[in-house]
Amino acid sequence: MRVAAVETELRRILDARPLSGEIARPERLMAAMRHGVLNGGKRLRPFLVVESAALFSADGQAALRVAAALECVHCYSLIHDDLPSMDDDDLRRGQPTVHKAFDEATAILAGDALLTLAFDIIADEATLLPAERRATLVLALARAAGAGGMVGGQMLDLEAERKRPDEAGIITLQAMKTGALIRFACEAGAIVAGAPPADRERLAEFGSAIGLAFQLADDLLDLTADAVQMGKATNKDAAAGKATLASLHGPDWARGQLHGLIEQAHALLDPYGEAAELLKQAATFVATRSN
Amino acid sequence: MRVAAVETELRRILDARPLSGEIARPERLMAAMRHGVLNGGKRLRPFLVVESAALFSADGQAALRVAAALECVHCYSLIHDDLPSMDDDDLRRGQPTVHKAFDEATAILAGDALLTLAFDIIADEATLLPAERRATLVLALARAAGAGGMVGGQMLDLEAERKRPDEAGIITLQAMKTGALIRFACEAGAIVAGAPPADRERLAEFGSAIGLAFQLADDLLDLTADAVQMGKATNKDAAAGKATLASLHGPDWARGQLHGLIEQAHALLDPYGEAAELLKQAATFVATRSN
Repeated sequence: MRVAAVETELRRILDARPLSGEIARPERLMAAMRHGVLNGGKRLRPFLVVESAALFSADGQAALRVAAALECVHCYSLIHDDLPSMDDDDLRRGQPTVHKAFDEATAILAGDALLTLAFDIIADEATLLPAERRATLVLALARAAGAGGMVGGQMLDLEAERKRPDEAGIITLQAMKTGALIRFACEAGAIVAGAPPADRERLAEFGSAIGLAFQLADDLLDLTADAVQMGKATNKDAAAGKATLASLHGPDWARGQLHGLIEQAHALLDPYGEAAELLKQAATFVATRSN
Repeated sequence: MRVAAVETELRRILDARPLSGEIARPERLMAAMRHGVLNGGKRLRPFLVVESAALFSADGQAALRVAAALECVHCYSLIHDDLPSMDDDDLRRGQPTVHKAFDEATAILAGDALLTLAFDIIADEATLLPAERRATLVLALARAAGAGGMVGGQMLDLEAERKRPDEAGIITLQAMKTGALIRFACEAGAIVAGAPPADRERLAEFGSAIGLAFQLADDLLDLTADAVQMGKATNKDAAAGKATLASLHGPDWARGQLHGLIEQAHALLDPYGEAAELLKQAATFVATRSN
């Protein structure tokens, strides 16, 4: 599968010697970054970048680099999210979180460095794209990841613990916290390929549908699955007093919504025929996964 | 002074409504970001960007935007540096630090958002530069701020508390922690202007000299000034067991070095004649300031 190459690329980037313009790479910091990234993640976002780009026969190496950059952003957000003052998690994928394996200060810096590295990777000429596309990708990623996207969503999530948001509030929170990066992943494929604006918009819409389905499936699992199936504590959201759309409207409503989102996602890719088969399967998988 | 416009630009950027690609801007997060940025900072780095760009008659608006972006990076680094698990500072410029005025999680997110915003500002077409220059600036800033630059320097600084570095170690630490961003500030002016590589290198060298002088002057003040003059506790480095070049070689050696650095910085700007007068004054000021 194409996404296996992302793993190799991430390792290569994090193992590299200092690049032009860098002075030294402190080993403890690099080790913490590797710990946070090379941890057996599912690589959903890189998969979406690489497969979306392939839809338009984009340069594979460029897509790989952008996919790696996006995964750095995703992993930085998990490292900071796990910190004691945030979600305070000791384990991720069965391994100690970065602040547990190292310390809190190192975890903050490792996250900061990974976010910075993401923009480094995209802007570098080694991402074999015209400067115009590299700048467009930097901007789109910054908007998806920043105060008006992922980080803003994390802020809303923190506030939701104090004041339960209404349905519109939950939708905004989720579109920002998890939706924005997944939307970017699909849109990025079209940007890498230099696809026309209409295709870029279509892929972004596809990404939004997947993002919604991803979150809804997660909430549904939290509501219905037993702990054995999930490999982690369930009903965690309810226990934390967090409202989700699934808890608000119940599991039947959620399953109906998921069905609709799959249909919508598939319809968006119909114009691309056979070439979109893997992406369509991904949409179905995301919406129906059982763990 | 040209740099006053940076203040206005920073306020405008942080007060703006959500931009294209953003969903919403949570008010608490934006307030924390404003608290960390609009705090009466000296704006040394923006000054260096704007004046270096002016040396080559660069577009003023573009220089202003890059200056604002760089200040966002500087301020994010201070917000994260002040956190309990890092330097644990309650006050900055006489005001509560961001985690004191808000809370720790909000401070982490505000820093993350400011770092992301910096790349947003530079990559945006509103920074009236060809895409090639925007991509070059993103890359140079990422290298100066990331694991091989500022963040790496903060990591070395943390490690220096456990194991005292030797002279070479101190030089590397300082070149990364404070030097890299100041070097970038001066280099950025030349990039904004599209100046030839030789000028870009010359301005970067000037930035390195200023960065060294800035740190050495700071260490010298810590060693010799009394608390009244500094408006803060002095001999803080020695008390913390931190070795500096000034403490290693003594104040006379430090003054001699500073004199040499001023001469070197001025000589680097000689080719630009009268136009470089303000930058030369800045070099002298940085090396001889008494608080």
